[in-house]
Amino acid sequence: MAESEWHETQIRIRYKDTDRMGVIYYGNYLTFFEVGRAELMRHLDFPYAEVEADGYILVVTEAKAKYYANVGYDSLVTVKTRIAMVRHASVRFEYEVVDEAGKLLVSGHTAHACLNKELKPARMPSELKKIIEENIES
Amino acid sequence: MAESEWHETQIRIRYKDTDRMGVIYYGNYLTFFEVGRAELMRHLDFPYAEVEADGYILVVTEAKAKYYANVGYDSLVTVKTRIAMVRHASVRFEYEVVDEAGKLLVSGHTAHACLNKELKPARMPSELKKIIEENIES
Amino acid sequence: MAESEWHETQIRIRYKDTDRMGVIYYGNYLTFFEVGRAELMRHLDFPYAEVEADGYILVVTEAKAKYYANVGYDSLVTVKTRIAMVRHASVRFEYEVVDEAGKLLVSGHTAHACLNKELKPARMPSELKKIIEENIES
Amino acid sequence: MAESEWHETQIRIRYKDTDRMGVIYYGNYLTFFEVGRAELMRHLDFPYAEVEADGYILVVTEAKAKYYANVGYDSLVTVKTRIAMVRHASVRFEYEVVDEAGKLLVSGHTAHACLNKELKPARMPSELKKIIEENIES
Repeated sequence: MAESEWHETQIRIRYKDTDRMGVIYYGNYLTFFEVGRAELMRHLDFPYAEVEADGYILVVTEAKAKYYANVGYDSLVTVKTRIAMVRHASVRFEYEVVDEAGKLLVSGHTAHACLNKELKPARMPSELKKIIEENIES
Repeated sequence: MAESEWHETQIRIRYKDTDRMGVIYYGNYLTFFEVGRAELMRHLDFPYAEVEADGYILVVTEAKAKYYANVGYDSLVTVKTRIAMVRHASVRFEYEVVDEAGKLLVSGHTAHACLNKELKPARMPSELKKIIEENIES
Repeated sequence: MAESEWHETQIRIRYKDTDRMGVIYYGNYLTFFEVGRAELMRHLDFPYAEVEADGYILVVTEAKAKYYANVGYDSLVTVKTRIAMVRHASVRFEYEVVDEAGKLLVSGHTAHACLNKELKPARMPSELKKIIEENIES
Repeated sequence: MAESEWHETQIRIRYKDTDRMGVIYYGNYLTFFEVGRAELMRHLDFPYAEVEADGYILVVTEAKAKYYANVGYDSLVTVKTRIAMVRHASVRFEYEVVDEAGKLLVSGHTAHACLNKELKPARMPSELKKIIEENIES
């Protein structure tokens, strides 16, 4: 299947991100996914803030994470993000979070529906859809 | 000085609330302060959601916490909250968080300014101010 | 397939739980899942804190959530939790989060592996496994 | 009074950081303070992770924040941090968080006590104290 290339962004693990096991709390990886897709969209010159400024939101309809390993305070993790699929009114991002040695910590995906200001399903802004399609390799 | 009586609400500590020291992350006490004042206002029959529904917000202008002790996962803490002062356009809450044995963990206060929908300073809803004044002992 | 009965626990939505859309941030549902399984285990007289006190941890290996609707500040949501499967060294919880009218907001599951103090896969404490099996209807 | 120079670090505001007012939740500034002091200590070549690796912790004994303005999603804020005071067993950090135009959003401080592995008050590692003193201008 066609996907965009992985876009990478780094996150320094804060004390706040850890739990009493000494590693990243499992739910926080969904925040890291958010950072990953935000930075991918900024890289595509269509920051998510612009999507909302244009009157649309990409609401999350599904999120999944598989946990293989974990790291603790002050680690520098890399969130790799790519777009796995785009349709008229939905988009799907895939993620891999790796540690400084490149070891896979967590993989996952999020699915999003495009809604308009009235929170009704809507076609994505055509410019955004075009940019995404151009970045999905065939 | 006159203050309202302490209102008590209990919070069960989640894994999410802890950090790698095994105890509550220091910033999370400000969330517990939020819970404390929300439950105090509900107890006064003027839930904070109503304040906002009426077109006002009580924005935080200052927050302070002193940390004496801490507890970990699954502890049941009690947040004691009282109103220390109310003026036309501001209010001040005081807090004490204690553990199950009544030991003081954290004390603190928050100061709030009343803003209207345009985010300009505004007099508090008169009904709210009256309720608060009635609950501050003289 | 056999599952335990749904156990219900309520959570009051804090300002902290919301994001700028005015509703619960998607990642916070994983915290609510944590509260759901903690309260289910307490209900089964085997609080998760005891599992760790006995030298085991139930580390999350997978988490999934499907998002159907969402609610905002001060809402009272109910987290329904049940055990869908238990094996020698793993357990799977299922969740449904509903609003005050019983409307489904989010469904999902988490899978957990049992590790010992050395963070190696381990059989679950036999007492815990027995309690869980007794609560899974056949 | 003598203080170290301001050290600056930038934080991109996540959706997760906002609340339903559309701006940064007040308690999250304490997380930003954490990031500020961690990066200041890294800049001084004594990362906080090393303090803990050496068997010490700098536990927070007091935190205060004054809120002047706020910003929303995708803003880039700068956390300015300096050391205001160091004693044998305690240290005090000061913070200013400003927006992209340099406007002051929040100012504050945290006070920390040095504890050893047994969580008893302890003198700070002498190397750390020396580094800090050298960075406080007289």
